Amino acid sequence: MQKYTYFFGNNQADGNIKMKHLLGGKGAGLAEMTNLGIPVPPGFTISTEVCTYYYKNHSYPQGLKEEVGEQLKKLEEVMGKQFGSDESPLLVSVRSGARVSMPGMMDTILNLGLNDNAVKGISKATGDERFAYDSYRRFIQMFGNVVLGIEHDEFEKLIQKIKDRKGIKEDTEITADDWKQLIPEYKNLIKEKTGTEFPALPEDQLWKSIDAVFMSWDNQRAKDYRRINNIPDDWGTAVNVQVMVFGNMGENSGTGVAFTRNPATGENLFYGEYLPNAQGEDVVAGIRTPRPISKAQKRDASEISLEEAMPNIYRELLEIRNKLESHFRDMQDIEFTIEKGKLWLLQTRTGKRTALASVKSAVDMANEGLITKEEAVLRVSPKDIDQLLHPMIDPSAEITVIAKGLPASPGAASGKVVFKAEDAVNAESKKVILVRHETSPEDVAGMHSAQGVLTAKGGMTSHAAVVARGMGKPCVVGCEMLNIDYSNKLFTAGDYTIKEGDIITIDGASGNVIIGDTPKIEAAISGEFNTLMKWVDEFRTIGVRANADTKKDAETARKFGAEGIGLARTEHMFFGEDRIPIVREMILSDTKEERKRALEKILPMQRSDFEDLFRAMDGYPVIIRTLDPPLHEFLPKEEGAIQELATNMGVSVEKIKEKVAQLSELNPMMGHRGCRLGIAYPEITEMQARAIFEAACNVAKEGVKILPEVMIPLVGIKKELEYQKKIVVETAKMVMEEKGNQIKYLVGTMIELPRAALTADEIAEEAEFFSFGTNDLTQTTFGFSRDDVGKFLPDYIKQGILQDDPFQTIDIKGVGKLMKMTIELGRKTRPEIEIGICGEHGGDPRSVEFCYKAGMNYVSCSPYRVPIARLSAAQAVLKRQ
Amino acid sequence: MQKYTYFFGNNQADGNIKMKHLLGGKGAGLAEMTNLGIPVPPGFTISTEVCTYYYKNHSYPQGLKEEVGEQLKKLEEVMGKQFGSDESPLLVSVRSGARVSMPGMMDTILNLGLNDNAVKGISKATGDERFAYDSYRRFIQMFGNVVLGIEHDEFEKLIQKIKDRKGIKEDTEITADDWKQLIPEYKNLIKEKTGTEFPALPEDQLWKSIDAVFMSWDNQRAKDYRRINNIPDDWGTAVNVQVMVFGNMGENSGTGVAFTRNPATGENLFYGEYLPNAQGEDVVAGIRTPRPISKAQKRDASEISLEEAMPNIYRELLEIRNKLESHFRDMQDIEFTIEKGKLWLLQTRTGKRTALASVKSAVDMANEGLITKEEAVLRVSPKDIDQLLHPMIDPSAEITVIAKGLPASPGAASGKVVFKAEDAVNAESKKVILVRHETSPEDVAGMHSAQGVLTAKGGMTSHAAVVARGMGKPCVVGCEMLNIDYSNKLFTAGDYTIKEGDIITIDGASGNVIIGDTPKIEAAISGEFNTLMKWVDEFRTIGVRANADTKKDAETARKFGAEGIGLARTEHMFFGEDRIPIVREMILSDTKEERKRALEKILPMQRSDFEDLFRAMDGYPVIIRTLDPPLHEFLPKEEGAIQELATNMGVSVEKIKEKVAQLSELNPMMGHRGCRLGIAYPEITEMQARAIFEAACNVAKEGVKILPEVMIPLVGIKKELEYQKKIVVETAKMVMEEKGNQIKYLVGTMIELPRAALTADEIAEEAEFFSFGTNDLTQTTFGFSRDDVGKFLPDYIKQGILQDDPFQTIDIKGVGKLMKMTIELGRKTRPEIEIGICGEHGGDPRSVEFCYKAGMNYVSCSPYRVPIARLSAAQAVLKRQ
Repeated sequence: MQKYTYFFGNNQADGNIKMKHLLGGKGAGLAEMTNLGIPVPPGFTISTEVCTYYYKNHSYPQGLKEEVGEQLKKLEEVMGKQFGSDESPLLVSVRSGARVSMPGMMDTILNLGLNDNAVKGISKATGDERFAYDSYRRFIQMFGNVVLGIEHDEFEKLIQKIKDRKGIKEDTEITADDWKQLIPEYKNLIKEKTGTEFPALPEDQLWKSIDAVFMSWDNQRAKDYRRINNIPDDWGTAVNVQVMVFGNMGENSGTGVAFTRNPATGENLFYGEYLPNAQGEDVVAGIRTPRPISKAQKRDASEISLEEAMPNIYRELLEIRNKLESHFRDMQDIEFTIEKGKLWLLQTRTGKRTALASVKSAVDMANEGLITKEEAVLRVSPKDIDQLLHPMIDPSAEITVIAKGLPASPGAASGKVVFKAEDAVNAESKKVILVRHETSPEDVAGMHSAQGVLTAKGGMTSHAAVVARGMGKPCVVGCEMLNIDYSNKLFTAGDYTIKEGDIITIDGASGNVIIGDTPKIEAAISGEFNTLMKWVDEFRTIGVRANADTKKDAETARKFGAEGIGLARTEHMFFGEDRIPIVREMILSDTKEERKRALEKILPMQRSDFEDLFRAMDGYPVIIRTLDPPLHEFLPKEEGAIQELATNMGVSVEKIKEKVAQLSELNPMMGHRGCRLGIAYPEITEMQARAIFEAACNVAKEGVKILPEVMIPLVGIKKELEYQKKIVVETAKMVMEEKGNQIKYLVGTMIELPRAALTADEIAEEAEFFSFGTNDLTQTTFGFSRDDVGKFLPDYIKQGILQDDPFQTIDIKGVGKLMKMTIELGRKTRPEIEIGICGEHGGDPRSVEFCYKAGMNYVSCSPYRVPIARLSAAQAVLKRQ
Repeated sequence: MQKYTYFFGNNQADGNIKMKHLLGGKGAGLAEMTNLGIPVPPGFTISTEVCTYYYKNHSYPQGLKEEVGEQLKKLEEVMGKQFGSDESPLLVSVRSGARVSMPGMMDTILNLGLNDNAVKGISKATGDERFAYDSYRRFIQMFGNVVLGIEHDEFEKLIQKIKDRKGIKEDTEITADDWKQLIPEYKNLIKEKTGTEFPALPEDQLWKSIDAVFMSWDNQRAKDYRRINNIPDDWGTAVNVQVMVFGNMGENSGTGVAFTRNPATGENLFYGEYLPNAQGEDVVAGIRTPRPISKAQKRDASEISLEEAMPNIYRELLEIRNKLESHFRDMQDIEFTIEKGKLWLLQTRTGKRTALASVKSAVDMANEGLITKEEAVLRVSPKDIDQLLHPMIDPSAEITVIAKGLPASPGAASGKVVFKAEDAVNAESKKVILVRHETSPEDVAGMHSAQGVLTAKGGMTSHAAVVARGMGKPCVVGCEMLNIDYSNKLFTAGDYTIKEGDIITIDGASGNVIIGDTPKIEAAISGEFNTLMKWVDEFRTIGVRANADTKKDAETARKFGAEGIGLARTEHMFFGEDRIPIVREMILSDTKEERKRALEKILPMQRSDFEDLFRAMDGYPVIIRTLDPPLHEFLPKEEGAIQELATNMGVSVEKIKEKVAQLSELNPMMGHRGCRLGIAYPEITEMQARAIFEAACNVAKEGVKILPEVMIPLVGIKKELEYQKKIVVETAKMVMEEKGNQIKYLVGTMIELPRAALTADEIAEEAEFFSFGTNDLTQTTFGFSRDDVGKFLPDYIKQGILQDDPFQTIDIKGVGKLMKMTIELGRKTRPEIEIGICGEHGGDPRSVEFCYKAGMNYVSCSPYRVPIARLSAAQAVLKRQ
C-alpha cells in the first residue's frame, strides 16, 4: 500500500533530505535533522502526493485518514501526552512546506489541540494560566482567520474593547482573566460569522487545518509567487504536523532565526536574531525588532545578545550550526525555539543570501575545502551576479540622509514614494519606492513592481527583507525613525516630511534613506568575485562578447570580461543631436547624388565611432552591423519637430510630411529595413563599409590589433548577402589600397528570419559568420510582434499556454529548433563558420546553456550581463559533466 | 574544337529541332524544316553559347571569326553568288532567335550585303532598278537605325523632302532615280550622326549587325519581356544569318504568316494572312491590313485569298502545313515568302493560341490520334484555362457598339481610355484600355498594365494580337473605323467621339468596341473543355477544394469541380451592412456579458451562412475557420463613421476613438489576431462553434450529407489549439445533444507560422487536419509584410534576388521546406492526418505541383481557379511519370 505520511522524532525519521519532492523542503529538513540527532519536536509530514491527489480528485486518497490517526497515536506515545487532555494535552502546529521555500505564501496553524479542556491541562502543565489562555485565544483567532476566513480585524476589535474598557494600551497588560472572558466572545464571533460552532474536537481541528493548508496552495498570492518564481503548479505542498514548543513561556524561553553565515556579506560568522519570550511568528512578522544572537553581531552596547543572555543555549546552537554546515555543505537558514531553557530546532534550509554573500560563501567554502571549485561555480546563481552588478550610490555624491535602517538587500534605488502595493503596480512609470510599516505576502506584486522597498519595522529576516533579497531588489528595513501616515500619504523622518510622489533614494548596502535622486555607479567588484570569475573562465568553453555601440559601453564590457563585440548597432550612433539632422537630410534626399552628399557628412562621424570601438577591443573581434531599422524611425513625428526640420533643411513642411507618410508602413517590423535598405540604397552600405575600413586602417597604424567583422542584417535570401558582401569587399579593397595596409576581416550575417535558418547551407556559401538575432527570430517564428504582444502574452503565461516569455528565454522547441538547424546546415557548407548569438537572450542563463549545447562559438549580451553570461556558460559545461 | 555555327541548306542541316537551347527556336526550326525537305533559304546559326560567352567575356570566342568566314563561303558556293558582287551579289538577313520566341523584342537586319556595287548586281539580276535601290536604301536605313542608333524619323524626313519636292504622297510613287539620289543623303546622315562612314564591306556590315543582335538581348524591352515571362537572362540568343528572299518583287511575290489551325478557335483549318508584293515585316508591323490565305477564311467577297491568287503556291503551302503538323504533332505558326512564284519557308514554331484554341486543338488532336490524352492534358497551360474563364459580356446586356475590329484575344474588358503605354503604366486605377494605331515592343509594359488593348491597324498576327494573346488580355485589332488623334487625346468612330478618360469596353471574342462599362458573365465552357477536364480528373490524384465564404462562391466553385470548401472565412460574413453594427457592438463591449449579448445576435446570421455552405457542398467537406483578423479591422476609421456609430450605439465618440486607439497595433499582422482572439474571448469561439453545429444539425435533418471541419487559425503552440479545440468539442457535444443527432466532424488548424511547422508533431496530437496558410507562412518565413513589400519586392525580382514573387508561387527552398517538415512531423504523430493548402498558392500551377509532390491530400483555391488547380494537379502527376 502507498505510504502518505512520514514520521520524525526520537532521533529517527522515515524520511531524509533527499525526499524534498515528497516531503517538501521543511519536512525533509526536519527529517534530516532528526536523523542527525539534532533536537527537533516530533511530528509527521503528509506528502506532496496527497496535495496532487487532492487537486486532481477533490478528495483525499483512501487510507490517509487511518494513517494520520496512527501517526497521531505515535505522537501521543512518544510525547506521553494526549490530545484534549486536561492533564497533559498534546498541541501541534500544522504548516505547509513545498519543495522550494515560498515564504509566507501559504497558511500555518499553531497551538492546535486547544479546547476548553486542554487549556486547563496547559495551565496546569506550565503553571502559567495567562499563557494558557493567551495561547488558546491565539489559536481560536488563527483558526478563525486561516481556516474559516474571518478577518483578523474582527478579532482585534474584541481585544481593543477590553483595552478600552480597562484603559490599557499593550497586549501584555491584558490578564489571564481578560483572555478567559474573551474566549466565549471569540467563539460567538465564529458562530455568528460562519453559522457553525468552533470545533472542540482536536481531530476536527486538525482535518480542517490540513484542508486549509492544502487549499492555500492555490490562493492567489501563492499562484502569483509561483508564476514569478517559475514554480510548477503541479508540484503541490506537503503538510507538516508537529508538536508545539513555546518560546513565549517566560524569560528562559525565546525564539529566533539564524544563518550559519552572514546572509548579507557571506562572512563565515554565525549570524541571527532572536526575541526572548516570543513565538516564532513574532520574528518573521517584523512587529518587534529582534536582538542579535552573538556579541560580535551587536550594533550597540545596550543590546543583549543570545550569547550573553543564554550562553549554554548559544553554545549548543553553535555546535548545531557547525554540524549542519559540514553536513549540508552549504549555508543554512535555521529556526529555533527555546522552551524553558530547552533548545529545539524547527527548520533548516539552504539560506537565501545576497549576491555578495552567495559569491563570498561559495568561494570561501571552496577555499575551506568544504566544496569543490566546480560546486562553488555551480552554487552562485546568475541572478546573484546580476544583483551584484546593480548600481550603487556614487560615494563622491553629496547626499542628504534623512533616516537610517537595516541594510536588508543591496543596491541603490531611486523613485517616487508610494504607500500601497497596488499603487506600485499601477504606477505609470515603474520608478517607485514602496514604503510600508512592514510588508506581508499581499504586497509581493507591489514589491516586484517597485524599484526598492523601505519598511519602518522588521529585521533582516523580516518578510520585506527576505522577499526583496530574493528579488534582487534594494531594501532597507527596520527604519524606526520613520513615522508613516498612510491616510495623509506621507511620512516624516526628523524634520523632513516626504509626501507620496516625492523622490527618495534607498541604499540597500548602508541602510541609508536619502532625499531626492542620487548619482550612482556600478558595484565595486570584490576579490571573491574575481576569484569566482577566474574559476568560471577555467570551466567555460564558449566565448562571451558584448553588444556595445559606444566607447563607454565597450570599455564597461571589457572590464566585465567581454572578449569582443558581438553587435555594434550603427544606427544607434545616428540618433546623436549633431547627427540626426544629417541623417534626416540623407533620408529626405530625392536623388542618389543628394543622398551621397549627406552620407559623406556622416562618414567621418561613423569612422570615429568605429575607431573608438576598435581601440576599446584591442585584440578582440568587433562585429559591426550595417543599417537595420526602417528609415522612418529617424524622421520626426510631431508637428513642431517637422516644422523645425523643414526650416533647417529649407524644404516645405508638406514635403517632409509626404516623405514621412511615404516611408510609413503597416507592419514596419517586416517592412523595408535591414539589408533591404542596403539593397535599395547601396550607397549607404558603401559609406558604412568605408567608415569601418578607414577606421580599421587608421587604428591598425596605431598598433591596435583589430578583427573587424561586418554583419549584414535581416538576410533571408542568399543573394541579398551576396550583393551586400560585394559592396563591402570592393570598398574594403579600395580603402586598404588607399591606406596602404592589409587587414583581415569577415563578412557575415544575422540569422533572424526563419528563411535564413532554413537556407543556412546556401547562405553559408557567402557568410563567413552567423549571428543569431533571436529577438527578430522569435518574432517571426511565433508571429509575435514584440511591440504588440503585451495584449496577450502575459495572459498566455498565466494560462500556462507558454511556460516562459520567449523574448526572455529562447523557445527551445520552436526557435531553438531553427537555430540547431542553422548550425548544422551552416557547418555542412562551411565547417569553420563562426556562430554566435547577439539577441537579448545572450545574457539569459537558460538561453546561454542552450547556446553552449547547440555548439555555438560565443554568446553576446549587454555589458552588464557579460559576467552572467560567463557564469551561465561555465555552469552549462559543469551541468553536462 | 568547339563548334559555334550550324549550317542549313540543300535539304541538309547541321542542327535539328532538339537543339533549341543552342540554336534558338528559329534556328532549330529552320534546321528541322531543311531536314524535312521543305524549301528554306540557306543560312547558318551562331549558337547561344556565343551570346553567353559574349556577355561573360565582352568578346567573341576564339575561332568564331574563322568559322563564320567559312560558313559565308559555303553560302556563296551553295547559292552561286558572291558578297558585294555587281553580277550576282549575295544578300542575307541577320535575325535573333532565342530558345523561346520573344516577338519583336530583339533586332533584325535585312538586305545585308548591299553596297554601291552589289546594288548594281541586284538591279541586273532582278531587272528591277527601283526594287534594287529601294532595297539598298531600306538596308541603310535599317542598319542606321538598328546598328547605329539613328532615329527612324531622321531617315523618313529625307524621304518626305523628296515627296514634298515632287508633290507626291505615297512611297510607291517614288522612282528608282529618287532612291538613287537619296542614298548619298542617307550616307551623309550617318556620317554626320556617327562621325564614321557607312560600311561598304559586307563583312563589316555583317559583324556590326551580329554585334547589334547580341547587344539587343540586353535592351530594356527584352529584359522587361523576360522578367514578365520568366525567361532566364543567361539563356542568351542565337543569331541566324540567312540568304534573303524577296516578297516584294512584283505581283507574283508576297509574304505571309499562317497557323496550321485557327489560333483563335482551335478549329482544324489552315489559317493565315498574306500581303502580295510585300516584305515580311509589313505583315507583322500591322501597317497594311493583310488578306486571308484561304477562301474559307474570307470575311467578304471582295477580298482575294492566296488560294485564289496563287492556287499552286497555296496547294504547296497546304502540303507543307500537313507535313509540319504530323511531324511536330502540334499547331505550327509559320512564315513564308513567295519570291517570283517560288515558295520559301522562313520560320516554323509552335503556334501561340487562345485558351479556347489551346483546349480545342489539344482535345481534337487527341481524338484525331495525333497525340495521347496525356499529351493533350499536358499541352494546355493552366494560364490558358485561366484565360478561358475570363468574364464575357453578358449577352442579354444592352450595349452600344461603336466600332468593330478583329477579335485578337478573347475576354471582355472595360476601362478608361488611354493613348500612351506610359499612361497605362502610371494610371492610378489600372482599369484602363490602351488604344493605339498599332503597338510596338515599347508598349509591352503598358499592355501589361492595361485591362485590354485596342488598335486601329494590324491583323490577327500583328504585334498587339500576339502579345495580348500571350498575356491573356482581351484585345481587338485592325479596327479601321477608329480615327485616333493622339495630340488631342481622343478618337472618333462614326458619330462617336471618345476622349481620354472615357470608359469603353472591348470584346476580344467578337471584336466589338462598346461605349461605357457592360455587365459581364463568366465564359461559356465548351464541350472540349469538359472533355479535357474529364481527362484531367482521370489523371489527378489529389483533391481540389475551393475557398468560398458565400453561397454564390460555393455554388460557382462546385460548378468548376471543387470537391469541398477548403476555407470559409467567417469574418468575411461580418462585413455585411446588417451585421457590421452588431459586430462593432461586440467589439466595443466592456464586459463578457455585453459581448455575449452581441454574439447572440450574430449567432443566427452565422448559422444561416453555414447552412448555405453545407447545402451547396452536399457530400463534400466544408472547412470553417474561426475568427482571424484583428478586431480593429471591423471598427470605423473615419470621423463621420465614428460619429454615426457613436450615435447608433448610444456611446460617446471619445469612447469609440479610445477603443479604436486601444485596439490599434504597431504590427497588426503579428498582433492580437487568429486564435489569440479566441483565447482572450472564448465566448467568440463558442458562438462560432454553436453556429457551425446548429447549422450542421439543421441541414443534416434535410438529408444533406455534411462533413464539417472546424479550423483554428494562427496556432503556433499546441496548447492554443488544445484550449480552442476543447471549446469546440464541448459546444459540439452540447448542440448535438440539444438537436438530438450525431455528426462526424474534425477539428484542425492552419499551419501558417514557422513555429507551427516546427512543432507539427506536437500540434498533430490535437489537430485532426492541417491546412497550410501559405500567405502568412510566407510573410513570417521571409519577414515580408505583404502590405509593405511593394517598396522592395519588385526591385528584388528585377535584380534577380528572387526569381518569383513568393506570394504568387511557393518559395520551395524556404517556405516549402517548412511545409515538407510539417507533413513529415504531422504524419509521424498522426499518420492519417488530412493535409491541404488554402493560401493563394493553392491556385498557382507550380505551387500545386509542389503540393502534389509533397504528398498533400488536396489544394484549395478561389472558385475561378479550381479548374486551373485541377489541371495543374493532373499535369504534376503526368510530369512525374
